[in-house]
Amino acid sequence: MRDTPYLAVDEQLLESNLAAMADHARQLGVALRPHAKTHKSVEVGRRQLAHGAVGLTVATVSEAEVFADAGFDDLFIAYPIWAEGPRATRLRALAGRVRLRVGIDSIEGARMLAHAATSGEHPVPLAVAVEVDSGHHRTGVEPGQAGVIAAASLEYGLTVDGVFTFPGHSYAPEARASAAHDEALALEIARESLRGLGLECPVVSGGSTPSADAAEGRASGGVLTELRPGVYPFFDAQQWELGTVGPGRIALTAVATVVGARGARVVVDLGSKVLGADRAAYATGFGRLPADAAARIVALSEHHATIEFASADEAPVLGERVRIAPNHVCAAINLADELVIESNAAEAAVWPVDARGANT
Amino acid sequence: MRDTPYLAVDEQLLESNLAAMADHARQLGVALRPHAKTHKSVEVGRRQLAHGAVGLTVATVSEAEVFADAGFDDLFIAYPIWAEGPRATRLRALAGRVRLRVGIDSIEGARMLAHAATSGEHPVPLAVAVEVDSGHHRTGVEPGQAGVIAAASLEYGLTVDGVFTFPGHSYAPEARASAAHDEALALEIARESLRGLGLECPVVSGGSTPSADAAEGRASGGVLTELRPGVYPFFDAQQWELGTVGPGRIALTAVATVVGARGARVVVDLGSKVLGADRAAYATGFGRLPADAAARIVALSEHHATIEFASADEAPVLGERVRIAPNHVCAAINLADELVIESNAAEAAVWPVDARGANT
Repeated sequence: MRDTPYLAVDEQLLESNLAAMADHARQLGVALRPHAKTHKSVEVGRRQLAHGAVGLTVATVSEAEVFADAGFDDLFIAYPIWAEGPRATRLRALAGRVRLRVGIDSIEGARMLAHAATSGEHPVPLAVAVEVDSGHHRTGVEPGQAGVIAAASLEYGLTVDGVFTFPGHSYAPEARASAAHDEALALEIARESLRGLGLECPVVSGGSTPSADAAEGRASGGVLTELRPGVYPFFDAQQWELGTVGPGRIALTAVATVVGARGARVVVDLGSKVLGADRAAYATGFGRLPADAAARIVALSEHHATIEFASADEAPVLGERVRIAPNHVCAAINLADELVIESNAAEAAVWPVDARGANT
Repeated sequence: MRDTPYLAVDEQLLESNLAAMADHARQLGVALRPHAKTHKSVEVGRRQLAHGAVGLTVATVSEAEVFADAGFDDLFIAYPIWAEGPRATRLRALAGRVRLRVGIDSIEGARMLAHAATSGEHPVPLAVAVEVDSGHHRTGVEPGQAGVIAAASLEYGLTVDGVFTFPGHSYAPEARASAAHDEALALEIARESLRGLGLECPVVSGGSTPSADAAEGRASGGVLTELRPGVYPFFDAQQWELGTVGPGRIALTAVATVVGARGARVVVDLGSKVLGADRAAYATGFGRLPADAAARIVALSEHHATIEFASADEAPVLGERVRIAPNHVCAAINLADELVIESNAAEAAVWPVDARGANT
């Protein structure tokens, strides 16, 4: 018996989730480049490649370093990196040993990246993709401006792979299909913005887990050439509540022990330091129990979660264990040092969270 | 220059915060037993002891193990531990080498603890304190029931130190003084509940950072003999917004670089994986900038924070650095592997977050 709390992964569900998204990408006729910020695990990344992924997406230089050290040779840092100081040196070292693509959304950013790539003794090749805003309103330029950034990047001596966006506004009720539509429209404008300036645009990259179902790829005349979903190996309570999947496909849960029980309300021995404190406006609580759709996590502190069951009869007793799907699996994994892999309900392996805390 | 993001601690502010709470406890005539779940740092714990703390409070057995390994010999796990499996063995090992007190709030919990303490080759001494609910409604029995739990604990062969509560409902606007009042009332009823059964109650333990100002100790006829604040070494945006302190006393900030700038809105290179996603109902955003009270963090994702400044003139430009106080400093520290200590604005040391992720 392992002491709670810990994160358990159902290996059969993980494998079927990996296979399903790989099949989906093949059917769309697009390359799959999963976002590794979700799992931060070399082993999960290897399995994604084994299922046909072309490479990985990461969020930071330090995540890229972890995967490069593990032998991954094709990485996309889908983030507008400001390449200054030690980070510029690290980026150059990375570009010298793997096929590296970096996001940009400003001319100044492109200039800094080019400087980083060429300021060493030997210049290194560095590819970029221009980030465009498809409705999430975070980073990224207006789609029609993508060509200007791409042209400047070429001028600075960078390779331009193409354009990308993150349709993060797919994380809202009933928004999955419309976000996929916005994504396609923004990427098409961005691609034409490059072509209008006589530039190539081989890569048109999009994709989030909620919008992936509604994405259109080359096979059906869609604009996408590449998909970057992150959460799909595990799914989570958010994906359940958004309707992306049902609870039966959630592959990761936090295992907890009941330490307090009063009627229909129990308190378990994990809190925000295990689940994360993410709670979207549409969430019904601080996580969900895949085995009990009626139960609600009504309060969360650092080491306590208060769960309300439909009745006292449904509630577990002191010392019993419950399994909780985090609202946001990326946050929960980044809090843990390891994932406990269960195969047919028995503990089969422990995988380190190799890139935990890799934020720089 | 250090790559962002990272957590920076102002050593002078840390020291003055440590001194101020130690002075406050002395004036109240109570023992100070700071909660180490906030800092998870051996160095901060040592400084708390140097300022006169009698020992530390922790939330988990694994936190206790980290501090015991570092030589701390008086620890209170202020949590109703369910002592089963490996955890029972670990608890017994711990009780054999430090002065250990554990929280309880059920007769079954006391029985499990007693079994853990006595089931080895040599029984080990184990003290308990009965947790009572003073209004936070999480764990803890009704104050009038404390004596029943204490009597059962004695019956099982445990030492009873006394009673404790966590007035967590102090984390609300205008609630700091009333929560301190609720705390005192609950603890007095709990103490009398023990005395009514002819039991001693040497320890009456309470305290949170927001309610500490309004606490009454032995020096002024109050019931408290011990105070367990956690957040006070650093404070955070929550304490600022609750009115516990002004921004000038916040000793820990996350340092970020601007990676996107459009008028009064900028995006910086850190998100919920650095700040944590805590956002109480009363919070004005996902963190605050101590240097700019008007700025608001209006959106937060894993690696991006969107900050709105009063005007474009006030906003930093691409590549500039900003310092953000997390809403909840305990969550932010538990995401980091190290704290960068700055003395008079220069980097002076790097302290590991020794008990990061110690949840079991």
